[in-house]
Amino acid sequence: MLPDLVPPVVVRPRDGRDHADRIALSAATTDGVHMRTEDVRAWIAERREANDFHVERVPFRDLDQWSFEEVTGNLVHHSGRFFTIEGLHVIEHDGPNGDGPYREWQQPVIKQPEVGILGILGKEFGGVLHFLMQAKMEPGNPNLVQLSPTVQATRSNYTKAHGGTNVKLIEYFAPPDPEHVIVDVLQAEQGSWFFRKSNRNMIVETVDDVPLWDDFCWLTLGQIAELMHEDETINMNARSVLSCLPYHDAAPGARFSDVQLLSWFTNERSRHDVRARRIPLADVCGWKQGDEAIEHEDGRYFRVLAVAVRGSNRERISWTQPLLESVDLGVVAFLVREIGGVPHVLVHARADGGFLDTVELAPTVQCTPQNYAHLPAENRPPFLDVVLNAPESRIRYEAIHSEEGGRFLNVRARYLAIEADDTVEPPPGYTWVTPAQLTALTRHGHYVNVEARTLLACLNAATAQPRGGA
Amino acid sequence: MLPDLVPPVVVRPRDGRDHADRIALSAATTDGVHMRTEDVRAWIAERREANDFHVERVPFRDLDQWSFEEVTGNLVHHSGRFFTIEGLHVIEHDGPNGDGPYREWQQPVIKQPEVGILGILGKEFGGVLHFLMQAKMEPGNPNLVQLSPTVQATRSNYTKAHGGTNVKLIEYFAPPDPEHVIVDVLQAEQGSWFFRKSNRNMIVETVDDVPLWDDFCWLTLGQIAELMHEDETINMNARSVLSCLPYHDAAPGARFSDVQLLSWFTNERSRHDVRARRIPLADVCGWKQGDEAIEHEDGRYFRVLAVAVRGSNRERISWTQPLLESVDLGVVAFLVREIGGVPHVLVHARADGGFLDTVELAPTVQCTPQNYAHLPAENRPPFLDVVLNAPESRIRYEAIHSEEGGRFLNVRARYLAIEADDTVEPPPGYTWVTPAQLTALTRHGHYVNVEARTLLACLNAATAQPRGGA
Repeated sequence: MLPDLVPPVVVRPRDGRDHADRIALSAATTDGVHMRTEDVRAWIAERREANDFHVERVPFRDLDQWSFEEVTGNLVHHSGRFFTIEGLHVIEHDGPNGDGPYREWQQPVIKQPEVGILGILGKEFGGVLHFLMQAKMEPGNPNLVQLSPTVQATRSNYTKAHGGTNVKLIEYFAPPDPEHVIVDVLQAEQGSWFFRKSNRNMIVETVDDVPLWDDFCWLTLGQIAELMHEDETINMNARSVLSCLPYHDAAPGARFSDVQLLSWFTNERSRHDVRARRIPLADVCGWKQGDEAIEHEDGRYFRVLAVAVRGSNRERISWTQPLLESVDLGVVAFLVREIGGVPHVLVHARADGGFLDTVELAPTVQCTPQNYAHLPAENRPPFLDVVLNAPESRIRYEAIHSEEGGRFLNVRARYLAIEADDTVEPPPGYTWVTPAQLTALTRHGHYVNVEARTLLACLNAATAQPRGGA
Repeated sequence: MLPDLVPPVVVRPRDGRDHADRIALSAATTDGVHMRTEDVRAWIAERREANDFHVERVPFRDLDQWSFEEVTGNLVHHSGRFFTIEGLHVIEHDGPNGDGPYREWQQPVIKQPEVGILGILGKEFGGVLHFLMQAKMEPGNPNLVQLSPTVQATRSNYTKAHGGTNVKLIEYFAPPDPEHVIVDVLQAEQGSWFFRKSNRNMIVETVDDVPLWDDFCWLTLGQIAELMHEDETINMNARSVLSCLPYHDAAPGARFSDVQLLSWFTNERSRHDVRARRIPLADVCGWKQGDEAIEHEDGRYFRVLAVAVRGSNRERISWTQPLLESVDLGVVAFLVREIGGVPHVLVHARADGGFLDTVELAPTVQCTPQNYAHLPAENRPPFLDVVLNAPESRIRYEAIHSEEGGRFLNVRARYLAIEADDTVEPPPGYTWVTPAQLTALTRHGHYVNVEARTLLACLNAATAQPRGGA
C-alpha cells in the first residue's frame, strides 16, 4: 500500500509532476552552488588521500572468510552473504526456426540474488536541482575513488537484520516518499558476468536540510555531464541511475514508432532461445584454476582472483574478497546517425547467459577486441572494425569508464559514440532508435543493458552539455 | 532489423497511428458484418458438432509417446517437444528486512520453454475494426469448443523445423508487418502452474482478402464484449490478447501517478525474495503418485492426470496427453471503487513460484476457496469473504471462464468485479490502480498476471458494452 498523503489527493494526472523541465534546467546549469566543476577532481583526489586505501592481489588461500566449497568448488563467504562465484552453462540456439546459430559454453559467473539500492538524492538549491554524489572507494577501481550515487547498499547493508545500519541517508530510499520519487526501477547488471543480478535504481528528491559529510557533494546535471567526459570519474552505478532520468523528448518522432520498436524487440526475444543453468564451479569446462586465479584456458575473457584491502595503516588488512578482472580494455560504442534531423543510435538485441529474459538492448559494439584477435575479420563482431578505425572527426563522444569496483578489478572500456556513414544498414538483430526511446524504456527493467545505459547517460549528458562547453 | 518500408518514412510520431479511436468505434459497434452476436452461440455449437471430439481420462500407462522418465520421474514426451511435468521447490522469504513471512513448498509444475504465438487478426469492414476469432476445440475445455485467437501455435507448430506447417494465417504473425502491428508483447501465464512460461500476444491488422474457413468468424469488439459476459465462451488466450488492446484513457488521472505506481511495484518486487528451482518430479514432497493421478496428500490444489482424445470415429484415439485439473471452482475478483469519479481496481502484488521475476500484479482475490476451507477465517486470503459474501447489488461483472484447455482440464473460476465499500483500505501489498494504468502496463511483460488480464479484458469490455446492452 502506498502511504497516505497529506493533504489528501483524490486523483492526479497519471504522468505526475513534470520533472522534465527541472531536469533540463539542471542540465543547462554548469555552476553548482556547492563546488565548481573544475574543483571536483581535486576534491576527489583529496578524498582519496583522506581515505588512504591500498589494494593488492593475494592468492586464494589468503582470503579471509571466503573459501572454495567442498564438492561444488563454488567460491563463497562463510556467512552465506555477499555473493558467490559459481559456474554457468549456456546453450543458445537461435533463428526463427530454431535452426540459426548454435553456441554452447561454460564460464564462471557471479551470483548475487539480493537486490541492492543505488539511490541518488536530489534537492533544489536556488531553484536548480542538484544531485548528491559520493566520493567512494571501491577496491576494483583503477583509481580507487570515483563519484558514486548517494547510497550504494546491498539488502544486508540497508536492512537492520544484522543489527543497525551505517548506510548514510538510506532513510530516503528504503522506502522512498512516493511524493518525491523521480526514478525507481530495477535494472540488471552485466549479463556476461552476473547471473540475473538487478539493483534498484532510484532518484528521490528532498526539501530537508541534509547533513553534508566530507565524502559528499551536490552537483547539477550540467556539472555531472561535464564530468562524464572525464575518464574513470563517474562510477558505473551512478551512470546507470542517471541514465534513467526522465529527460523530455524534444524530437518530432523516430524512425520507428514505440509500438513498432516494442514489436521488433518482442520478435528478437522470441527468436532467441537461451537456456542458462548454474553448475558447480568445479565442473566448468575450458577454465583452469590456479593458486592465484581462475582463468580461461586460452587466456581470454576474464580472470577470477582475490585481493586484500588495507587501510592507511598498511599493516592491517581491512578485508579480502574475490574480484573479476578483464583480460584487456573493452570497447563499447553506439553508431549514431541523424534520420530526418533526429539523432538515432544503432542498438543490438544482445543475448547474454546472465540475462533474466533472453535479450536486452545493447550498444552497437560491446566487446573486448582482444578476445577476437585470433579470428578472421568476418568472424569478428559486426561494426567492431568501423569503431576501431573511426577517424577522430567522427567521434562524437569518448571516455574511458570502469565497471563496478566492488566486483571488477580494473575492468575498463572505451565508451564511444561514432557518427555512422549514411550507408550503414542494420543487420538482423540491430535497429535504429532515438535516445529518447531508450530513455522511455529505462522506466522498466530488462530492456536497456547496463553498457547501453552508460552510453545513454553519456549521450544525454553530451547533448545537454557539449564537450568543452564549460 | 525492421523491414524497409515502402514508401520510405523518415521519422514518424513515437506514439504511432492512433488506434484508440478505431478501437472505441469497434467497441461501440454491436452489429458485426459477418454474424449476429445472438447467432454466435449456435455457430459454436455447430462447430462442436462438426468436429465431434470425445475426451476421456485414462491411466498414465495408456499415454502414447508420454512416459515418466527414469531417475527424475518427470513426465515427458518422447520427442522432447510439447511440455514436461517436473517438480518445483519454492522458498519465499518476504518482508523489507528479510524477516517477513516464510513459506516453503514443493509442487508439480508444467515446463514449456518455447514461446508460442497467440495472434488475433484485425480488419476493417465498413470502417469498423473486426477481429477474426476461431472456434477451437481443446481437450481440457469443459465444453470443448470456445472462441480462441486467430492463431494459437507453439514454436514447433509455426516454424517449419519439422517440415511444413498447417497453422492457418500464421504468415500474418511470424513475423508481423511492422506497419500493421497493434499489439505485440510477451505475456506470462499462470505462475502457480507453469514454470516461467510466456506467449507472444499479438494483434495485427490486414487489408487483405482473408479466406474464411468454417471455424473462423469476424467479430467487432462490441460483440466480443457481449460474449465476454457469457460463461466459458472466450478462451483464456483470447482474453489475454484482448486485454492488451490500447484503449484510450478518458479519465482525468488516477489515485497515484504512473511513476508512483511503478515505484510501489518496484518496492514490492524488491521486498519479496522468492527462490524457485526445478527438481525431479520423483522428489516432490507432499504429493503422491497413483496410476491415474498425481495429487496433493491432502487432496488440495490440483491433480496431474492423463486424457485420450477421440475423433468422431470413437474407435480411434487421436492423441493422448497429460492435463492439470483443479480440485474445485476458483474465485478471481477485483474489488472496484470510484476515487474522485474515476473507477479503480484493487491490485495485489502476488508472488508465485513460476513467475520469471518475483511478483506480478494480480486481482484482489485469486484462489480456490476449497484450499482454505480448513483454515480459520483470519488465515484465509484477504478479501475472500468480502467477495464470496457480496450481495448481488454490488456485483459489477460476473462470468465463469476456464483456463487454457490445452493444459488444464475443467479448470474454471468465477471472475467477478465487486463494488467495494468506501472504507476498504489497501493492506500491504495491495494498491488502487485504474484499468487504464493496467492497460498501459500490458505493453510490457511480467507486470499484469494472466488472471488480472482476463478481468481487465472483461472490465474494458463491460465499460464499452454495458451488460444486457445489446
